[in-house]
Amino acid sequence: MSPKITTELLKQLRQVMKNPRYVQEPVQAYIVPSGDAHQSEYIAPCDCRRAFISGFDGSAGTAIVTEQHAAMWTDGRYFLQAAHQMDSNWTLMKMGLKDTPTQEDWLVSVLPEGSKVGVDPFIIPADQWKRMSKALRSAGHDLVPVKENLIDTIWTDCPQRPCKPLITLDLSYTGVSWRDKIVALRSKMAERKVMWFVVTALDEVAWLFNLRGSDVEYNPVFFAYAVIGMNTIRLFIDGERMMDPAVREHLQLDSTLEPEFKIQVMPYGSILSELQAVGAGLSPKEKVWLSDKASYALTEAIPKAFRYLTPYTPICIAKAVKNAAETEGMRRAHIKDAVALCELFNWLEKEVPKGTITEIVAADKAEEFRSQQKDFVELSFATISSTGPNGAIIHYKPVPETNRTLSVNEIYLLDSGAQYKDGTTDVTRTMHFGTPSAYEKECFTYVLKGHIAVSAAIFPNGTKGHLLDSFARSALWDCGLDYLHGTGHGVGSFLNVHEGPCGISYKTFADEPLEAGMIVSDEPGYYEDGSFGIRIENVVLVIPAETKYNFKNRGSLTFEPLTLVPIQTKMIDVDLLTEKECNWVNEYHQKCREVVGAELERQGRHEALRWLLRETEPLARVQ
Amino acid sequence: MSPKITTELLKQLRQVMKNPRYVQEPVQAYIVPSGDAHQSEYIAPCDCRRAFISGFDGSAGTAIVTEQHAAMWTDGRYFLQAAHQMDSNWTLMKMGLKDTPTQEDWLVSVLPEGSKVGVDPFIIPADQWKRMSKALRSAGHDLVPVKENLIDTIWTDCPQRPCKPLITLDLSYTGVSWRDKIVALRSKMAERKVMWFVVTALDEVAWLFNLRGSDVEYNPVFFAYAVIGMNTIRLFIDGERMMDPAVREHLQLDSTLEPEFKIQVMPYGSILSELQAVGAGLSPKEKVWLSDKASYALTEAIPKAFRYLTPYTPICIAKAVKNAAETEGMRRAHIKDAVALCELFNWLEKEVPKGTITEIVAADKAEEFRSQQKDFVELSFATISSTGPNGAIIHYKPVPETNRTLSVNEIYLLDSGAQYKDGTTDVTRTMHFGTPSAYEKECFTYVLKGHIAVSAAIFPNGTKGHLLDSFARSALWDCGLDYLHGTGHGVGSFLNVHEGPCGISYKTFADEPLEAGMIVSDEPGYYEDGSFGIRIENVVLVIPAETKYNFKNRGSLTFEPLTLVPIQTKMIDVDLLTEKECNWVNEYHQKCREVVGAELERQGRHEALRWLLRETEPLARVQ
Repeated sequence: MSPKITTELLKQLRQVMKNPRYVQEPVQAYIVPSGDAHQSEYIAPCDCRRAFISGFDGSAGTAIVTEQHAAMWTDGRYFLQAAHQMDSNWTLMKMGLKDTPTQEDWLVSVLPEGSKVGVDPFIIPADQWKRMSKALRSAGHDLVPVKENLIDTIWTDCPQRPCKPLITLDLSYTGVSWRDKIVALRSKMAERKVMWFVVTALDEVAWLFNLRGSDVEYNPVFFAYAVIGMNTIRLFIDGERMMDPAVREHLQLDSTLEPEFKIQVMPYGSILSELQAVGAGLSPKEKVWLSDKASYALTEAIPKAFRYLTPYTPICIAKAVKNAAETEGMRRAHIKDAVALCELFNWLEKEVPKGTITEIVAADKAEEFRSQQKDFVELSFATISSTGPNGAIIHYKPVPETNRTLSVNEIYLLDSGAQYKDGTTDVTRTMHFGTPSAYEKECFTYVLKGHIAVSAAIFPNGTKGHLLDSFARSALWDCGLDYLHGTGHGVGSFLNVHEGPCGISYKTFADEPLEAGMIVSDEPGYYEDGSFGIRIENVVLVIPAETKYNFKNRGSLTFEPLTLVPIQTKMIDVDLLTEKECNWVNEYHQKCREVVGAELERQGRHEALRWLLRETEPLARVQ
Repeated sequence: MSPKITTELLKQLRQVMKNPRYVQEPVQAYIVPSGDAHQSEYIAPCDCRRAFISGFDGSAGTAIVTEQHAAMWTDGRYFLQAAHQMDSNWTLMKMGLKDTPTQEDWLVSVLPEGSKVGVDPFIIPADQWKRMSKALRSAGHDLVPVKENLIDTIWTDCPQRPCKPLITLDLSYTGVSWRDKIVALRSKMAERKVMWFVVTALDEVAWLFNLRGSDVEYNPVFFAYAVIGMNTIRLFIDGERMMDPAVREHLQLDSTLEPEFKIQVMPYGSILSELQAVGAGLSPKEKVWLSDKASYALTEAIPKAFRYLTPYTPICIAKAVKNAAETEGMRRAHIKDAVALCELFNWLEKEVPKGTITEIVAADKAEEFRSQQKDFVELSFATISSTGPNGAIIHYKPVPETNRTLSVNEIYLLDSGAQYKDGTTDVTRTMHFGTPSAYEKECFTYVLKGHIAVSAAIFPNGTKGHLLDSFARSALWDCGLDYLHGTGHGVGSFLNVHEGPCGISYKTFADEPLEAGMIVSDEPGYYEDGSFGIRIENVVLVIPAETKYNFKNRGSLTFEPLTLVPIQTKMIDVDLLTEKECNWVNEYHQKCREVVGAELERQGRHEALRWLLRETEPLARVQ
């Protein structure tokens, strides 16, 4: 992968930063955040402005361009990738390292006195605006909204915003109708005494209306906003897709309905003016509820005294706790996903020694096997298919320039997942198709111990996920090792593979407590730059735990793995496992045999079944 | 302990809340925070306003009195104590429980429209003012400063503010002279481009000038402020104590000094006007550094644009990392402290069966043994001497009404410590002088496993203490048990027994990373209301750890116990310990034998030595 040459682009950007056609006054710095107008993590090609200007296309990163400098902030997952993708015009700012300045501190250190820093008010979340604006102001600078996106002005071949057909989901998938979701939302609004709720996150719009789309790759969402009043529902969405009879029927657009359930469909682009009209018409005490991560532009549409901002919306919190229909769907999706991976690993075991399987071929084959499964829609993220040193690039995606051939001499790491109509999967397995070294096995076993420590953890109701993060690291820490990413993220139900408000990370302090029905990933790892990467990831469901005692009647929780794919026993140094850990592995493999074995049998996939049985032989621990 | 009858006092307070002599406009609510003008945790009798109005005298709690209600917020350590000490005029707000409203939410729910909420601006920290003021304003109320403290107006027999003699500490105790500390502070100020630093915390003033006092019980501090400029030093302190020749010599008040080290001594009460003068005389860009926990009154003295506020001051951070002289002092203090406790436990073992030893007698005896040790100054906090059900009151202090007799049938918990001129101690041991039940041993062993999990933890440089908190709970969680307090706090060096900026708690997210040289406590527990309390506490020093590997050359840390007092093996269910845990106990006891044994020998305390040898017999684990 060679870096993108950005000299000319940066020159053009610096010109428009001074061009009165676009800016009222010249801006001395311009911030290019990662997201779109919905603060999405995965974005449509037309919104990949940061990748366009810098070349770095990881899922997280913020670019800042000044007259003299161009700098990129990203986290540990992307240090290597960003360094590879960016040319020497760019300085990489490694977030999480002690000496890396914050964006604010860096701006203050490089800007001339009394500078203006520009940003697109639709792209920057209100909470970030506030923090950045305050820091800049206290140093004598100004953060200013630049209405026209300056990247768009120099991006001559920018693709169109997508507007694809919608999928309607019936009760067998969602468990709750959109009308009942609106009723529940309005009751939360009444509790907080707010009259309006503005839905800005794409997955929240999709969840609320039991609709899915494909405007953004990997995320089954569509570009839309919604504004829910106590008696009105406004959906801001473009395109012919609202002419689809199935969609009209699903939303009851042509039925005679109680007025409070009548959906008014409005153009996507009219959200700002409509919201400004709402803001202008408010009586005293009528509050409007927004996420504090909604864009600065939409937040400003509501006068400050009328805003009710929270880090997590009631939809975000309700969406995270899966109901019985969603949980069952997730179980089905993970069994199908396991079938596909058993087929893949069985196939790789035979093909890798021939020396013809590249990372891309393996990734494509994984997709092929998945696509054979019922209700498959698409992948849930770009497959990380990486062998040897590529495995150390934490969010690697194979491209022709980096594509490496799998061999019996290197560790292979596959982090992949899919969207099925009944659920979303995300699984990482690390395999060796030859004979792993003692050191590779040692590292793998520490990661496995961390994975088990989280998966088998029992903790009181009300515990936040970040309190479990150190369990995943303890075995690595004991030997002086660690990994520079969080341990887990929330997973949507046929929705975004990363979702809030819960997670397991040393960084996430604003997470909501874990509750039975929530679904998160458990994915510790270990990476040696230039040599290999190890990660073991299951998606796990939060379930009530049985305990000997019950302090203060709080009840306890634990996790049930939804992912049922064998963990390669060849990579395990059994002597490093405790008896309890050894039993965990054996019980997990027994469940894989029973549940996935039955499905392989049912689908007539006998060779893959034999592979599964071989890979799930119990570990024997010599005490 | 019977509750304080507060009906009359509340009536008087509600009258002055409307009295134009004290308030410009009537206030509908009045907040009585826990602290003094220095945001101290331990306060002088004249500052115990919350205890005066409510009866609840725990170390943490905030009272709010409205026209109709009186409510007290406190944390899990004090739920039982507060319930015992307050009469029915008061509602107890149990912080940390899910359904407990915040002070702001509660105020909003009970206040009539457009209310004024009063508070003493010298007592409320600026960060709390800001949060509370914002929340109230957004609900249509106002937080207003009430200059005259309304509790003081009704507290007719309020004691005088203490003004005791000072102790000077030479280099053999402090390792660094006050001049060098000023130099280091000014270099931190230059780094942040601030011209002035305001020292508001009493332990920071004491540490900076290598002085100690006894104005506040248990904390060797004195009432003072300091304002450090790049070329000036102003110390605000009252009383004849500055006439003491030793103090004058120590501070070089009568020497010819470079002007930047010349200390100007000013009256304690002149801090506000002096700071206002500093604030009025600032040139643009001249910043003043204050803790964001400094009082609202002092913070407001500096115009907003000139304030530089941080959660932890450079003194707080420097003070936390003990130098070689301080560490050696802390070691000596802990050996002496262990000698006193060996004497005590040996004595208790003989006396308790006679049925004459009460909690107060035991606490007094502990103080007597400690006071026999060299450089003993005073206790470092009120001794928690509690037996049976009193042990479940987490910060219990025996008083005649509750004083219970120790017996061979109940668990005894002793949490105690002392100030020695060379260091501060804080140790908890839980003992049974008869035969503990299987259940008591089981609970004790879970607590011990948690204690060891923290003490033996290895973690990367840069790790914050709160990431270790769950290690202390894991064994309890596995059985559905837990405890409602943090696991550890920073400990001063002949200073406050609780100090920032580090700690080990599920609540402390703003803690600074642990560094070699920091000293914290490790004190998990388990409490059954009405029945018993268990806690095992050592003070531990953060030290570099040797590890097999060294990821990213970050280096690793671990803890070395400074406390060297036997952990009662009779209470341990050895079968519940892993081999590693068993070895930890045996190695710890071996060290107690060697180090404390030698000192007992040296002091000729042969009976206590025999007790120590008996109590440190190695555990035998049958596998």
